[in-house]
Order: sequence, then structure tokens, then C-alpha cells
Amino acid sequence: MSKLIEELEKLPGVGSKTAERLAFHILKAPAEEAMGLAYAVRDLKKNTRLCSVCCNIDETDPCWVCSDPSRDRSVICVVEQPRDLLALERSGSYRGLYHVLGGRISPLEEISPESLTIDKLLGRITVETKEVILATNPNMEGDVTANHIAELLKPRGMKVTRPARGLPPGSQVESVSHAILIDAMDGRQEIR
Amino acid sequence: MSKLIEELEKLPGVGSKTAERLAFHILKAPAEEAMGLAYAVRDLKKNTRLCSVCCNIDETDPCWVCSDPSRDRSVICVVEQPRDLLALERSGSYRGLYHVLGGRISPLEEISPESLTIDKLLGRITVETKEVILATNPNMEGDVTANHIAELLKPRGMKVTRPARGLPPGSQVESVSHAILIDAMDGRQEIR
Repeated sequence: MSKLIEELEKLPGVGSKTAERLAFHILKAPAEEAMGLAYAVRDLKKNTRLCSVCCNIDETDPCWVCSDPSRDRSVICVVEQPRDLLALERSGSYRGLYHVLGGRISPLEEISPESLTIDKLLGRITVETKEVILATNPNMEGDVTANHIAELLKPRGMKVTRPARGLPPGSQVESVSHAILIDAMDGRQEIR
Repeated sequence: MSKLIEELEKLPGVGSKTAERLAFHILKAPAEEAMGLAYAVRDLKKNTRLCSVCCNIDETDPCWVCSDPSRDRSVICVVEQPRDLLALERSGSYRGLYHVLGGRISPLEEISPESLTIDKLLGRITVETKEVILATNPNMEGDVTANHIAELLKPRGMKVTRPARGLPPGSQVESVSHAILIDAMDGRQEIR
């Protein structure tokens, strides 16, 4: 029991109280439910692998995006993590390919460009590739990472874009932060 | 006392409990403090007026923005309310002129284009005006209002822009709403 509590506590957002509560739930649950959880955790680790094309995580290689013939192969959207890819997929805002970096450049955490999958991205660029979208997070480390990749791609004459920053839909000009207003005014777009 | 509570309750976000608490505070406060509040409210109504140029609210006419010789007179930023103007000023993101609409087009609330200061805006456009920024709120009514004004300005060959929509700085791709991701991907901008 204490071993399980210890393991559960390692999960993000799970403190000792929650871990105890979860452990007692599992203790009282029917055997099939407990074993179902155990096998699901085991299979996740056993059956998932990195996609050898885009470094996404999936049960197949190439992953479900790379192997989908209906995707637009002229655009590659670069994201930090597989969960960013999932968020973009769920939004329905994108129909091209992805490239998962496996993180972002962070000198503080000693994450250098070499520990990301940037080389692999450069190797994927073909004559078919018309645009690379750098969808790293809109914060300092994400910006540094995007700029680093842009500097490698621009000399090749590649069109490199960044998702827009600005006002979230449904927000109000009077109540958003100064940083949002600065981005929104700087990035204002012409109505045609 | 009950008259004051009743008046305080009309303020936005002030319920009966809060109104009572405020009223008792005023009751116990020194006379000068209470009269200071009374005069401040009275003077606000007595001394403020609409700017005859931009329809901002100020104690002077023209208002402090319109009468500032250092402002860039080639750009007019159209906002719904004076408080939007204040938010943009505090962000330091803009140095041009403003035009306050006094609301947005809203068929539900029976606010038609004619009840806003759109005619006045059209009358302000001179050869000096190079760009009109439509900074109405990023929601349906704000969009309808912006489109209505854009349709009036575009035939005159005016450059008409809208503040950018997209990811708020400091947010994370994985956790923002679908609507934000759709705006961010649609509005993506090229890195030059």
C-alpha cells in the first residue's frame, strides 16, 4: 500500500492526501478494475514509440498523422510536445504535418538545441515543403526556440511563420493585460 | 441611510450586503471624507463632457488626447468605450488618435449604427489620415461593428486594420481554447 501511495505521489498534481485517497479507492475496487488500470499503464509503456518521421508518440510508426494520406504534406507545424499536437488536432485548425521537438531550448534547465529533434526537422524539409509553422509556446523559451529554428530555415528560402498572438476571442479590450494589447496592436492586420 | 444603500446597490458588482457595509463605513467616517466623496461624484458629472472631436470623456474639450501635439495624427484607433481608450493608453502600445463609438452595434439591445458616433468618425477622416484601427472587442458584436465601419471606409481607399487575435503571451498551446488556436493558426504571420 505505501509503495502504491509513493508511486501515485510522483504524478503531477497528486499530493500525499490525494495519493492516499486514490490508493484506498483502488484497494476497495473490484480486482478487474485494478488490473485494468495496471495493464493500461503497462501497455502504454510497452506499445508506444516515437514516430521515426515526426517524433510524435503513437502505437504505430509512422504515427497516425504521418501515415494519413489526406494530410497536407506541404506544411510542417513544429510543436514542443505531443500534447500540443493533440490540442491543435482537437481545435480542427490545422490539416498539415507536425514535427515534435521534445521540449524547448532552456539554458536554465540545460536543454540545448542539440537535445531537441531540430536536426531531424531539417532533414525532413523537401521540395514539397512550402511552409514551416513554429507553434512553440508564446513565452520566452518558446520564442528563443522558434527564433533559433527560423535562423536555420530562412537561409534555405523557406517560408517560416508563427501563430498569431493577440486578443483571445471573447475577451474585452478594457480588461486584458498590457502584454496582450501590445501584441495585438503590434500585430494588427489589414482588413481586405 | 436606506436611500444611500439603495443608490450604492445600483453600482455594478455591489449587492445589498456590500452596499450596507459601504453605507456604514460612510456613516462612521469623518465628515470631510464623506463630503469629499459627495463632491467628487457631483464634480464628475458637472465637469466632464464629451470631446467634440473624438467623443472621449474628459474635463476639457478637445480632450487630453486630441489636444496633445505629440500624438501621431495619421492614425485613428476606434474603440467602443472611454475605458478601452484608457486600457490602450496604460499599455503604452499606441501613440495615435482615438475615436470613441459610445458602444457597439447590437440588434438585441436595439443599438443601431445610427446611435453610435460613426458619422462623426467619417467626418474626421482627412488627407492626413493614413490608417484606421478598429479596436472593438473581439466578440460577435464587436466584429459586426468593425465590419460595418470597414465597409464604409474601404471604398474611400483607407487602410483599415484590426488588432491581432491569437495566443495571449505566456499561455500554453496545449491548454488554450479551440477558438484561440483557430484564430492563432488562421492569423499566423511570416517571420522575416
